Amino acid sequence: MEVHVSNQQTPNTGTNLDPWYSNYADRAAGLSVSEVRALFAVASRPEVVSLAGGMPAVSALPQDLVVTAMNRVMRDEGSIALQYGSGQGVPRLREHILEVMAMEGIRGSVDDVVVTTGSQQALDLVTKLFINPGDVILAEAPSYVGAIGVFRSYQADIVHVLMDDDGLIPDALREAIAREKSAGKSIKFLYTIPNFHNPAGVTLTASRRDEVMQICRSEGILVIEDNPYGLIYFDGPPPAPMRSTEDEGVIYLGSFSKTFAPGFRVGWAIAPHAIREKLVLAAESAILCPSAFSQLVISEYLETADWRAQINTFRGVYEERKNTMLQALNEYLPDLHHTNPDGGFYIWLTLPDYLDTKQMLPRAVKELVAYTPGTAFYADGGGRNKMRLSFCYPTPDQIRLGIRRLTTVINGEIDLLETFNATGPLQTIRSSRSFSAPPPDLD
Amino acid sequence: MEVHVSNQQTPNTGTNLDPWYSNYADRAAGLSVSEVRALFAVASRPEVVSLAGGMPAVSALPQDLVVTAMNRVMRDEGSIALQYGSGQGVPRLREHILEVMAMEGIRGSVDDVVVTTGSQQALDLVTKLFINPGDVILAEAPSYVGAIGVFRSYQADIVHVLMDDDGLIPDALREAIAREKSAGKSIKFLYTIPNFHNPAGVTLTASRRDEVMQICRSEGILVIEDNPYGLIYFDGPPPAPMRSTEDEGVIYLGSFSKTFAPGFRVGWAIAPHAIREKLVLAAESAILCPSAFSQLVISEYLETADWRAQINTFRGVYEERKNTMLQALNEYLPDLHHTNPDGGFYIWLTLPDYLDTKQMLPRAVKELVAYTPGTAFYADGGGRNKMRLSFCYPTPDQIRLGIRRLTTVINGEIDLLETFNATGPLQTIRSSRSFSAPPPDLD
Repeated sequence: MEVHVSNQQTPNTGTNLDPWYSNYADRAAGLSVSEVRALFAVASRPEVVSLAGGMPAVSALPQDLVVTAMNRVMRDEGSIALQYGSGQGVPRLREHILEVMAMEGIRGSVDDVVVTTGSQQALDLVTKLFINPGDVILAEAPSYVGAIGVFRSYQADIVHVLMDDDGLIPDALREAIAREKSAGKSIKFLYTIPNFHNPAGVTLTASRRDEVMQICRSEGILVIEDNPYGLIYFDGPPPAPMRSTEDEGVIYLGSFSKTFAPGFRVGWAIAPHAIREKLVLAAESAILCPSAFSQLVISEYLETADWRAQINTFRGVYEERKNTMLQALNEYLPDLHHTNPDGGFYIWLTLPDYLDTKQMLPRAVKELVAYTPGTAFYADGGGRNKMRLSFCYPTPDQIRLGIRRLTTVINGEIDLLETFNATGPLQTIRSSRSFSAPPPDLD
Repeated sequence: MEVHVSNQQTPNTGTNLDPWYSNYADRAAGLSVSEVRALFAVASRPEVVSLAGGMPAVSALPQDLVVTAMNRVMRDEGSIALQYGSGQGVPRLREHILEVMAMEGIRGSVDDVVVTTGSQQALDLVTKLFINPGDVILAEAPSYVGAIGVFRSYQADIVHVLMDDDGLIPDALREAIAREKSAGKSIKFLYTIPNFHNPAGVTLTASRRDEVMQICRSEGILVIEDNPYGLIYFDGPPPAPMRSTEDEGVIYLGSFSKTFAPGFRVGWAIAPHAIREKLVLAAESAILCPSAFSQLVISEYLETADWRAQINTFRGVYEERKNTMLQALNEYLPDLHHTNPDGGFYIWLTLPDYLDTKQMLPRAVKELVAYTPGTAFYADGGGRNKMRLSFCYPTPDQIRLGIRRLTTVINGEIDLLETFNATGPLQTIRSSRSFSAPPPDLD
């Protein structure tokens, strides 16, 4: 099997082929092909078990719920659904978003909500609104690959802040702020995913939320609280969002991509009043208005279907998949550290520090398993021996198979390193061979 | 009737109410409330005849065509429609876009097409990709209000180039280029709407297209050819797009908002290869991917419905409305210069130069008619005595009524000026009183 993983390819190569090369804006240099993107092409082959992407299990959403909603919309509000709408979003949907938000303890007015083309667009607009080239954005280490991409595209200086199994470390945040401020940098905001972190799979504890909020308040730093997974919890709900106790210092980002379906591209921001006004203007400039059709279908779904029960269904699906992945990791790779998420889509796996997950990826795809290399989630080259494993999309059987294949790949990589390092630090390498041998691949 | 037209209000006022005021990026200063936006709220009241907005006549699209397409999509491709998709757009839709493009003489590969959230997003991404603060964008005088908004939001220096009834004037283009280059400015692109210009209602002649293209080619200036109305022609098709004769120097922007429906927010760019690669990265950064559901519904519609016949239907609707507006203008306001579009949505009306259409707008809305003041379409304060009249959305009866009301407003404004300028230049004012008196308002 020939496999080309094209994550080396960036559009900045091939200068001589682009007559407009010298015309691009400075910020265009920040646009490069991410590991995740390159993987989509490779990992979408049916024979590959992809533990790489973040695609929700839309098969768990009964399609007749969608069909019913969209037919009602066309019957009752067709001329509105087909037309341009408000740049801020359909008021009816914004009201429903407040109901969803109430489940997380967030209260607000429909005026505070801005509907966006997925919460990714909200992230883009917030960054456009606040970031001058060289401004600092604080973000967890690791952080969401799509956020890093947006921040780079506006030439932000991304400063990672350490996290542990309890999420962002407040002392590390204090240190980063002090260091950047004393270096004369302008810190524009902290970007954080407090619940079931992508990619780290950890959750910020309640007491740390208070502490982080307190630090940001006293330092005058805006918090971007990105919470696409908050309702996808397993044992019980995560601590209340920071936005539930702080109106003026937090922009909260939400999404229907995980609780309904990403194909409609509907997310939202809840922002302090003055920021919200500017966000709407930025949104109108970018796309005029979000899709009226998409917004009305989701409104109708939220009005007529038992969406809370559907979220419960999703929780069950993802929890089973997480448990399967966890069991397989414990069985096949017991010596490797992995996180144990209480919700969301991802587990973060740490390999021995002499392994490079990006370099290992072509071998993995050859063994018909894909993951996302850790470096995708760092702006500073970190994460070389880490990887993100997604349990959201593959079935439990595929997940077990995928982890078995991954174990083969990791052991093979270690064998290879032993061969080439016969006179090198064998001690370190040998010590890692305590990984359980996986059973033979069964397919 | 109390009428507040809030086009004075900008979010930059009220500093003391925004704790984050000093944190915004420099580019945020370019985000201001446009006249058009403020009008949407006021003019959407049912009693107002709005000749202001650019909403298509979606009532002319049989809704069962949409319902059939979307039900088929959910039946046959539901799991794809609900899921994330490619950042560049669904290949199936990109193929259909090439069929639409072939009607205009444009050939290309599916690789050249980037699907966007309306063509507005394409405009945003192109601007993001090319514009450093202070870079020059050449644009017709007047130009599309939404383009001016995007350009400002990236701190471009917008330089208007004169046009006449044959569109952009090549000599004026040459002069503008020479002037800006000798001033040491970096000219990044020419933004032009060659067909049925928004707002001017004129079409660039075939010979001028060649000349404009020749100028830009020899000066190394990229052309952004924005063509949302090209297929909405009345007597016959407009000259071939510049993209049909030039692959490397043109980014062409297209849209389904006028030939199908804007509520799905689907547009596209056709770009030279290297630019297209960067456009896709910028699109992924901004929204991850366009709505798979929207794209598949439109694909299905294009495959199974007689979309060419439907475009013919739209043409008929808009041509009747244009003829009605033209007739009313000739009847009630025979002395005012107006353009006579061969297609599209808009007529551009020039009032005596001592009238200010922005100042006059609250009076117009009080008389239950709305239009878009000319200044909205200039980055440099031009267009004070101009207005854009849209014939796309109101019915022929409403259009006649609207023009009658507008005539009352204009005459009232002249009366007012006469009163206040009793010792002033009465000559000029008197000469304008030759406008026909409109018949009494009939509703």
